Amino acid sequence: MKICIVNPNTSASMTKRLAAAARAAAAPGVEILAANPASGPVSIEGYFDEAFATPGMIEEVVKGEAAGAAASIIACFDDTGLEAARCRATGPVIGVGEAAFHLASLVAHRFSVVTTLSRSIAPIETNLMKYGLDRRCARVRACEVPVLALEDEASGARGKLSDEIRRAKREDGAEAIVLGCAGMTDLASSLAGEHDMPVIDGVVASVKLAESLVALGLRTSKLGAYAAPLAKPYAGVFAHIGSPAFLR
Amino acid sequence: MKICIVNPNTSASMTKRLAAAARAAAAPGVEILAANPASGPVSIEGYFDEAFATPGMIEEVVKGEAAGAAASIIACFDDTGLEAARCRATGPVIGVGEAAFHLASLVAHRFSVVTTLSRSIAPIETNLMKYGLDRRCARVRACEVPVLALEDEASGARGKLSDEIRRAKREDGAEAIVLGCAGMTDLASSLAGEHDMPVIDGVVASVKLAESLVALGLRTSKLGAYAAPLAKPYAGVFAHIGSPAFLR
Amino acid sequence: MKICIVNPNTSASMTKRLAAAARAAAAPGVEILAANPASGPVSIEGYFDEAFATPGMIEEVVKGEAAGAAASIIACFDDTGLEAARCRATGPVIGVGEAAFHLASLVAHRFSVVTTLSRSIAPIETNLMKYGLDRRCARVRACEVPVLALEDEASGARGKLSDEIRRAKREDGAEAIVLGCAGMTDLASSLAGEHDMPVIDGVVASVKLAESLVALGLRTSKLGAYAAPLAKPYAGVFAHIGSPAFLR
Amino acid sequence: MKICIVNPNTSASMTKRLAAAARAAAAPGVEILAANPASGPVSIEGYFDEAFATPGMIEEVVKGEAAGAAASIIACFDDTGLEAARCRATGPVIGVGEAAFHLASLVAHRFSVVTTLSRSIAPIETNLMKYGLDRRCARVRACEVPVLALEDEASGARGKLSDEIRRAKREDGAEAIVLGCAGMTDLASSLAGEHDMPVIDGVVASVKLAESLVALGLRTSKLGAYAAPLAKPYAGVFAHIGSPAFLR
Amino acid sequence: MKICIVNPNTSASMTKRLAAAARAAAAPGVEILAANPASGPVSIEGYFDEAFATPGMIEEVVKGEAAGAAASIIACFDDTGLEAARCRATGPVIGVGEAAFHLASLVAHRFSVVTTLSRSIAPIETNLMKYGLDRRCARVRACEVPVLALEDEASGARGKLSDEIRRAKREDGAEAIVLGCAGMTDLASSLAGEHDMPVIDGVVASVKLAESLVALGLRTSKLGAYAAPLAKPYAGVFAHIGSPAFLR
Amino acid sequence: MKICIVNPNTSASMTKRLAAAARAAAAPGVEILAANPASGPVSIEGYFDEAFATPGMIEEVVKGEAAGAAASIIACFDDTGLEAARCRATGPVIGVGEAAFHLASLVAHRFSVVTTLSRSIAPIETNLMKYGLDRRCARVRACEVPVLALEDEASGARGKLSDEIRRAKREDGAEAIVLGCAGMTDLASSLAGEHDMPVIDGVVASVKLAESLVALGLRTSKLGAYAAPLAKPYAGVFAHIGSPAFLR
Repeated sequence: MKICIVNPNTSASMTKRLAAAARAAAAPGVEILAANPASGPVSIEGYFDEAFATPGMIEEVVKGEAAGAAASIIACFDDTGLEAARCRATGPVIGVGEAAFHLASLVAHRFSVVTTLSRSIAPIETNLMKYGLDRRCARVRACEVPVLALEDEASGARGKLSDEIRRAKREDGAEAIVLGCAGMTDLASSLAGEHDMPVIDGVVASVKLAESLVALGLRTSKLGAYAAPLAKPYAGVFAHIGSPAFLR
Repeated sequence: MKICIVNPNTSASMTKRLAAAARAAAAPGVEILAANPASGPVSIEGYFDEAFATPGMIEEVVKGEAAGAAASIIACFDDTGLEAARCRATGPVIGVGEAAFHLASLVAHRFSVVTTLSRSIAPIETNLMKYGLDRRCARVRACEVPVLALEDEASGARGKLSDEIRRAKREDGAEAIVLGCAGMTDLASSLAGEHDMPVIDGVVASVKLAESLVALGLRTSKLGAYAAPLAKPYAGVFAHIGSPAFLR
Repeated sequence: MKICIVNPNTSASMTKRLAAAARAAAAPGVEILAANPASGPVSIEGYFDEAFATPGMIEEVVKGEAAGAAASIIACFDDTGLEAARCRATGPVIGVGEAAFHLASLVAHRFSVVTTLSRSIAPIETNLMKYGLDRRCARVRACEVPVLALEDEASGARGKLSDEIRRAKREDGAEAIVLGCAGMTDLASSLAGEHDMPVIDGVVASVKLAESLVALGLRTSKLGAYAAPLAKPYAGVFAHIGSPAFLR
Repeated sequence: MKICIVNPNTSASMTKRLAAAARAAAAPGVEILAANPASGPVSIEGYFDEAFATPGMIEEVVKGEAAGAAASIIACFDDTGLEAARCRATGPVIGVGEAAFHLASLVAHRFSVVTTLSRSIAPIETNLMKYGLDRRCARVRACEVPVLALEDEASGARGKLSDEIRRAKREDGAEAIVLGCAGMTDLASSLAGEHDMPVIDGVVASVKLAESLVALGLRTSKLGAYAAPLAKPYAGVFAHIGSPAFLR
Repeated sequence: MKICIVNPNTSASMTKRLAAAARAAAAPGVEILAANPASGPVSIEGYFDEAFATPGMIEEVVKGEAAGAAASIIACFDDTGLEAARCRATGPVIGVGEAAFHLASLVAHRFSVVTTLSRSIAPIETNLMKYGLDRRCARVRACEVPVLALEDEASGARGKLSDEIRRAKREDGAEAIVLGCAGMTDLASSLAGEHDMPVIDGVVASVKLAESLVALGLRTSKLGAYAAPLAKPYAGVFAHIGSPAFLR
Repeated sequence: MKICIVNPNTSASMTKRLAAAARAAAAPGVEILAANPASGPVSIEGYFDEAFATPGMIEEVVKGEAAGAAASIIACFDDTGLEAARCRATGPVIGVGEAAFHLASLVAHRFSVVTTLSRSIAPIETNLMKYGLDRRCARVRACEVPVLALEDEASGARGKLSDEIRRAKREDGAEAIVLGCAGMTDLASSLAGEHDMPVIDGVVASVKLAESLVALGLRTSKLGAYAAPLAKPYAGVFAHIGSPAFLR
């Protein structure tokens, strides 16, 4: 089984880290493909960056399926472009945000999310509402660490994140923590140990959910929201998108 | 006062029709600028098309402001890319979907939406939930007319739309109808007469709301969800996006 | 176009101030009529006062329409008697509370309301729930300034209001502030400057929304909740109300 | 113990019927006072009538307490003016609508309401939402019988009501029925027998709840929403309302 | 009229206290039967204890009806096994938790709950959501006093409970307090006096609601959720449960 | 890795079928333990049966962990006793109902559930609300086939189930179907083929989710709702339950 993890930002170093985390979590016999778009922002912090990350992300999902991927993962916690990718893909598509929310709901009555910058709180809250899992989320918090600072040990990122987890445990009644950025994937296990509570990382969560759906033969329904795109003229830099060739 | 109406699809004929409708609704002294992206789908039907319409739409919003627009309108009923545009724009940005929902809420306790294809029901329902106005919406219905067929009299589009309005009035307890596609703008008044109930078109609604916000000096808050984009490297076809020049 | 702004309390000085604010916001060519009931409380602070303000307010709406008003505004933030007025009026009727909530939703993802006394929090929260816009409201706060103290510079009202706005910005994550009393209309602009965020006043908001609905030919639907009153016997001080003459 | 049941409309014959039903339901030793306002509509059908019924209803609640009533009942299914009455009264105040909803929630997982005219559906749905009990209500239906026709055997009212109950049982999955008009009080028991399901009448329900609250010494909290009215000038036909004498 | 109050835990001393409180609240002519299961935990603190308390509680409800009880009360604030008991019982069944929530809703716009241990917060919040009355509840708090410590004056239980009530009044905007454990029944009146606000105890509340339902002839609907159990084989220690004899 | 699937009813033939389905779905190297309680009902149809199935189910979960199970599955679609089991178990516990809802949410915007008898609709709807996933569920339907009839080919069960799926697809806008009884596990794949849409069975779904949680080292949080039971006296047939030995 091949699973393609698409980092929707253009940071190759983050793609590499995400792929390593995914591979460490994958079941024997599962091959992880990893990619990021050629076009778009180097990190996704808020709605604006999402808009320019989505087209390239979808193209990588398509390439992943062409390379044999049975499932695709969108490795930005905002679940950037998830619905659009589901329309186009043949196999299941999972966002790391939703993956983390679903698994957190299985091990805790109520969880809190700790993300990077406060501008990401609104998109995450909106996603939780779309998924229905806002009912299980005590609060979405930001530790005010930029996405790329997570890769820089000198930034003090881990300490700020840990402080915010401590507040979530004490003030929100959170029983578990969801890490609100794919770039935090390496920190989950040490933070869980430090705070003695489940700390859920969406990257590895999405790998297991992708494996699960593929094993059970479950694919995205094409009956309503995620109906396959209609062939139609597309213009400009996206001229190739609407063609039957791109849409298969 | 200049208001820029951006049709996020690449159909120039629809842009023209939308501009005409907007001009007819605009107050004296309001100049309507109209544009559509150079890149993207010729019509927006569902999540997939939205993803590829958004980048070009944002570029047109930026050009509109450079040309002096005090407010911007996104003229697709899905409010394609609304949040992202709000981050970047200096003046207020209004989606025709939300504009119609807000005005409908002022003249009816409960309204129904009639859109084009059923694949658009989910994005519209999700928007209503985000705005909070799902509480005021009895049902989102589709009349199964493709967007561009609305421009073709031979398609029977008006008849199908009218039939669906009749069902909404009888079955949903709808007190008003919201037309669920910007391309239906020309039909609102005749359908209102035929069914003797308010029929709200988002294109003209958004013009009046844009005028209102500008007149009151109200602009998008930059404090949280719509914080101005951070300058950062953008790659590929979007290389110019993250630069301080583009972001002003 | 004539718009009638009805102050539902019997304070003539407040009516005058509201009329001045409305006139300053009105578009060229819009004439503002202003009135308050002959009967009822001098200020509206909570459910009890509302009950006795409503009958007189409706009578003023009727007089306003007889004098040519194309739309009516109810200028108490509780939207006192809004539904009842909508049943009787021919043209659209807008409450200043709902007007402020709707415009705030267009410029902020989440807003807080700052009203006068804490007894008004429940009616405002209930209105937000009815409108659906509780989803957009972070919190309704009271600055514990009585309505009429807003007209008395010595009361320290502005300072208390400003302090509460500061708390809303810091504690609620509010991106915009809605002023929760029509009597605060004069303070919006200076408070917006002081706190560098949108501060929305319902009086001017309702003027623009009334202009918008009239311009678009939109009137209250008479199909369900706001069906025209049935002619029937009314007794006592309201004997004239149920007659076909009063109901037209 | 004295309980005052106030029929907020001015129909003396209905007041008499309601009083008889309340007396039949009252516990031994409970004296039922009954009254209706001197001013206002002869029946309450929608928001408009409510507005003019409320002031007189409150005056009767005050008189009832002066006559020794330990609790007050508002005997219109819309719970007309309930919050305002709660502010003024010293003892508990119960609406027949809320009484029926609360008891229905104790004997059925999900109930439907059958009211008189469809214009009353919106106020009832709004009340259910305010109380939280919309979650327990499958649907609010109207049998299109005017309130006063309930007193006229020739009107066929009972048959239309029974037909609508049949539809609620079959189509809504309703496990119990709430009668949506105080004037239906005499029909509850025969309809329950006919349809073999609980049929709840708010008039008798409110008598038992009023008895319960008085027995337990529970009175309306004056801490927030229902704070006692502030003494202030009231003008015109309501000049006596704001005085300390009226407010005690 | 006989009413059977079942304490679902096996603490006979608590059963005695609950019976005494119920008898003090009962109307003249109402006989209170009291019982607790032969099997199960000595106190109920969280979901685990509930699971083992329910079977024995149901058996006591059955015995109570056999002894002539017209209604049954489940005297644990978690409303342990309420739905299951409703299926089996012929007469109405009321949980002390729901009883308290319903009466609190009649005397306060918003209430807070103060329970024993924080592990009980989730079950109580879930019940509030099921009943719909979460909308009326500001917050569920725990004073961290174990259930049985409520019977031990040396435990300082009353003081901790009173402190938490003080916080609820100040921080939550609670207008009334619901005591979140049947074992707190003796403290309601003194705490109400101390804090000058309604303090609602579910034990006495449920007695009055049970009397009310019986007086009105209202029984649990058997049409859907609470349909009578089907006769079927039951094994092991529950072998007698599924027999027509047990099910009547 | 060992996973213990507990069928909470006492039907050994169903336990066998569920074990077979679980084994077929399990990853290489995963050993499925299967058990059912010694005490309780032979099938679970509604709240009453649930109450008597839970104690024995928990005992089997404990035995499963003693036998080395790293995770436990509760194989009744009502998720019978899930919260209680989570308190006691050391490893994660998954209900087949929640498992199906979570996976359905990953492949469809909106799904419908088809269960056995209509008395099970309320418990399932309540679970969906607790999980938050009611937002994703269009409708819970019953095909009126008793649980054990699913094992009897002559009962026509499959046909009735298929008919109900057809109605869900046509009337509810369901994009996927969740089979609402563990006993339907064998039918998922043929029904998916027949209706050309995802049909999700909770038994196999729960196996994959259990594998996922174990692989990721995620266990139930013990911080709040699912805190480990307190040692305390238990009486009668449950005397062994509260001992430190049983609670470990």
